[in-house]
Amino acid sequence: MGAFKMRGAMYAISKLSEAKKSAGVVTHSSGNFAQALSLAAKSLNVPAYIVMPDSAPEVKKAAVRTYGGEITECPSTLQDREATAKRIMEEKGASFIHPSNDMNVILGQGTAATELLLDHPELDMVVCPVGGGGLIAGTAISTHVLLQNCLCIGAEPMEADDAWRSLKSGKIESNSSVLTVADGLKTMLGDVNFPIIRHHVAEIIRVSEEEIIAAMRLIWERMKIVVEASSAVALAAILQQKDKFRNKKVGLIISGGNVDLTNLPF
Amino acid sequence: MGAFKMRGAMYAISKLSEAKKSAGVVTHSSGNFAQALSLAAKSLNVPAYIVMPDSAPEVKKAAVRTYGGEITECPSTLQDREATAKRIMEEKGASFIHPSNDMNVILGQGTAATELLLDHPELDMVVCPVGGGGLIAGTAISTHVLLQNCLCIGAEPMEADDAWRSLKSGKIESNSSVLTVADGLKTMLGDVNFPIIRHHVAEIIRVSEEEIIAAMRLIWERMKIVVEASSAVALAAILQQKDKFRNKKVGLIISGGNVDLTNLPF
Repeated sequence: MGAFKMRGAMYAISKLSEAKKSAGVVTHSSGNFAQALSLAAKSLNVPAYIVMPDSAPEVKKAAVRTYGGEITECPSTLQDREATAKRIMEEKGASFIHPSNDMNVILGQGTAATELLLDHPELDMVVCPVGGGGLIAGTAISTHVLLQNCLCIGAEPMEADDAWRSLKSGKIESNSSVLTVADGLKTMLGDVNFPIIRHHVAEIIRVSEEEIIAAMRLIWERMKIVVEASSAVALAAILQQKDKFRNKKVGLIISGGNVDLTNLPF
Repeated sequence: MGAFKMRGAMYAISKLSEAKKSAGVVTHSSGNFAQALSLAAKSLNVPAYIVMPDSAPEVKKAAVRTYGGEITECPSTLQDREATAKRIMEEKGASFIHPSNDMNVILGQGTAATELLLDHPELDMVVCPVGGGGLIAGTAISTHVLLQNCLCIGAEPMEADDAWRSLKSGKIESNSSVLTVADGLKTMLGDVNFPIIRHHVAEIIRVSEEEIIAAMRLIWERMKIVVEASSAVALAAILQQKDKFRNKKVGLIISGGNVDLTNLPF
């Protein structure tokens, strides 16, 4: 389905016991992870229960249904979503799988960097977007394990810089507002991925909305890849900090092309 | 530079003698081939002279210059373009390389299909867009040589169906109008590629403008690839003729992403 979320969903489901697989999996998400978990579960013959806010766009609900996910709608507060997921866990015996704060999801997301680093062991740095923290934590683990001298660097929108502030303060910070075009990066870190990020991410670079949109356009025009704004922040960080990356071999994690073609930011 | 034109340009230049390489190459084109020949020549240390109509958009001239091509402008008639190219051949001793009606260009374009068929020898059919005829002729040769039971099928806009009419009449036909969004396919066949197409292309399927745009959008949304309309005609043909392709293993040649992102057809 065109995004790294699939890697974490597949790996997390595959680690469940056969009994737990039969009972199914549940998550609350309105984005790529809802689609990824539905598709991964379908391909492994596992029921998937997706809790979505009743306000979620119909197109996203339709995508989840296409991939075989069974949707339960609820009011859009986090409390309601958590309570609804908990009820499904109890009723169905389903296993809850968090989109980014789950060790197996993190390890699964890290396989993107694993493939990159096995192909390119000459890399000095790997740059990766930071949203809920699953992808960057997985990338940091893969980088640490495979290439000791390769730095893992995060890239985050200035308008949702909770991870940058969390690294500064040493505790998980939240965003008071999230006015960014990179809508996949609005989520906050969790207690499973934050310690990994603290120990293994060298730094986080913050980028402006203009920088994100310019990088996105450059990827479309020159690499001919349809990426969403959230995937373009990594390139935006490199273009902003040219001196830091000059003469270095830099890998980028680019993933996710969930865009409305009739409403592009350029 | 994101299009198959590079394959033909590289191969045609590489087949020149060292003396001819030093004297350079010349073509008249305002599109992808002008960029491809410039870039290929630059990478092989060969001068490239590009004849462009003075009415060509500045952005295309700038792209040719970026790739190292030396532009000579002339009035936009075919006669003027040919006369200007001839003058440069005489003055510089440069070798003329036609964008699509040159055997080495054709063989070079065919390497896209060669790679596809070597990776997928199980294919029943290969579908490819038809413009000037270089890509389809090369694809037909590769298919004929590598897989005797694999059909090579062309796809062409209804609004520029010169190749479809040429196969019917047995001689090269031209387009009286070319009102198609697939602007890379407006050119007509030549005497080098037409006999190859006649002998080795099983059929040509014509598609409407609506079918081209729908196929283009599907590639963007599902495959996450930025393709221009001209590249989408192959998929449009398959979607139009579902019965013909049902249960067949079908390869598509998709190439070229030269689009104005601020002026998309959807």
